[in-house]
Amino acid sequence: MAVVFPRFLNSPLPHSSLASSLAPPSPRPQFFASSAPSSSSPMEIAPQKYTDFTFVSAPHRNLMVDMVSTMENRLDSQLKPCTLPSDIQYYYTPSGNSHGSLYIRSGHTSSPVDFVLGSWINCKMPTEGALNITSLSAYLNASTDAPNFLIELIQSSPTSLVFLLDLPPRKDLVLYPEYLNTFYENTRLESLRQTFEKLPEVQPYYSSALYIRCLTSPTSIMIQINTEGSREGRMEEIIKDHVHPVAKEALGIWLDRCACGHRNVDEEGKAYLEKRDGLIKNKTIEIDIGSSFPRLFGPDIANRVLEVIREAYNG
Amino acid sequence: MAVVFPRFLNSPLPHSSLASSLAPPSPRPQFFASSAPSSSSPMEIAPQKYTDFTFVSAPHRNLMVDMVSTMENRLDSQLKPCTLPSDIQYYYTPSGNSHGSLYIRSGHTSSPVDFVLGSWINCKMPTEGALNITSLSAYLNASTDAPNFLIELIQSSPTSLVFLLDLPPRKDLVLYPEYLNTFYENTRLESLRQTFEKLPEVQPYYSSALYIRCLTSPTSIMIQINTEGSREGRMEEIIKDHVHPVAKEALGIWLDRCACGHRNVDEEGKAYLEKRDGLIKNKTIEIDIGSSFPRLFGPDIANRVLEVIREAYNG
Repeated sequence: MAVVFPRFLNSPLPHSSLASSLAPPSPRPQFFASSAPSSSSPMEIAPQKYTDFTFVSAPHRNLMVDMVSTMENRLDSQLKPCTLPSDIQYYYTPSGNSHGSLYIRSGHTSSPVDFVLGSWINCKMPTEGALNITSLSAYLNASTDAPNFLIELIQSSPTSLVFLLDLPPRKDLVLYPEYLNTFYENTRLESLRQTFEKLPEVQPYYSSALYIRCLTSPTSIMIQINTEGSREGRMEEIIKDHVHPVAKEALGIWLDRCACGHRNVDEEGKAYLEKRDGLIKNKTIEIDIGSSFPRLFGPDIANRVLEVIREAYNG
Repeated sequence: MAVVFPRFLNSPLPHSSLASSLAPPSPRPQFFASSAPSSSSPMEIAPQKYTDFTFVSAPHRNLMVDMVSTMENRLDSQLKPCTLPSDIQYYYTPSGNSHGSLYIRSGHTSSPVDFVLGSWINCKMPTEGALNITSLSAYLNASTDAPNFLIELIQSSPTSLVFLLDLPPRKDLVLYPEYLNTFYENTRLESLRQTFEKLPEVQPYYSSALYIRCLTSPTSIMIQINTEGSREGRMEEIIKDHVHPVAKEALGIWLDRCACGHRNVDEEGKAYLEKRDGLIKNKTIEIDIGSSFPRLFGPDIANRVLEVIREAYNG
């Protein structure tokens, strides 16, 4: 989450769709709960956890639950439990308009996994409708140079979804063509990316932060799906029939080749990775500590959550 | 040229449009000469030079002539004359079906310009119609780390054009965010890119070579323009009203900030640039010496032209 969503909120295109042109969601309760569960007062809000994915449609939830469970089943013995305080695992504003969840599991010292970070937020927008962002990312440590993993779904209305899926490289692909070959050319990632080119509802998505664009691989999926004017349930169908299987296959590639594939990294290589990984994390936090997260959750919650992310990053 | 076109020819999408679904060009002689000037036998072919851009539409030719003359007017005192042999400055197959031109001007020792490379090819396709590629690129040497310049137009039919325009970075933008800031965030390149998002005829273009995708900046323009079904002359209108002014402004940015802007590069920086520039050139040639150029011109011409490009690249 930390990588992308604040820039999404700053971006002119989605911003306008959030702030001005967000049509009230059409009623489809079986798929899409657009705000907090019922109109409970803040006092009555029941605790939620990351894997509940409370506020999103069933196919969106199924996808995220499948991602987390597939990753955890495969890596479980390598991961410590999530020990975040309960007010970070689930947080919400006093008004009850904004809810969020953060979930971090660090890797054991012997594991190549640095940490796994999951997050969701649900924010009622002033103009009706809700913003739902769900994400799961996994960062490897400098014992391997293999790519990280990222999936993120940003839904600003029932008919508008940004879908990001990537194995972000950890080396300059221009200088390391054999790395490009191993992780991108010799995998099915490019054909996974191409499957979305055939869907008429899909347009490319460009992050408004140029630095974020530089972090992606050449096979990254960064798309906007717009189903306005399509038949009822089309978005859920796309998530179930296209987004879910593609995400599952990409995660499988990452688990096989990156998290569980062996790579030799010498001391010079380790220093390079530590410098590059560290710079990315610092820049990412610098971009994150913009106005968006405080705007949605107020400075207190924003600072508390960002502090926890900062700690995980500086591990 | 050397960077992209062979991969374009290998790419499934354009390949199919060339090899199977290329409709005969509709007659619009005022704009688009789809093959060699008249049906002259090889013996009668009049010599052409790079700046003639003989085979393309008037707006396409005007754009390329403007690019070359703007670059040469500004950099003229820094550039040596083109001394390529005449059979490289203009070459064609015995059948007269394929024509090409190469143009190289090296920079003087005191100049930050390594060399300027211009190229065009015109190839009759077996299924009727012609492929026209025109390009101009400028490479800087290691006395500066500023980006290079590239413009390329690949027209496979009167209604189908791939347009590539970029200031390809010479450093890993993830590791050098201040470089990203100087050349990309603090210029109008991103808003130039965005102008094409508004045109309904425009789709993103993905090179089939992942390595080529890695060479581009986050503000690169890599688009396919398809005007099939649009009114007569729409492609020429897009070239004149959109492609030309955007390309001109990007070239202005490159001339002001890159070719003529001063940058301090220390010895370590020079070694990094030489390594990275050299690797890009070698990989590019490796990708180029595929089957496409020999397929279009035969091995003899292909080898002769590629040998000259190799010499320019290795300085």
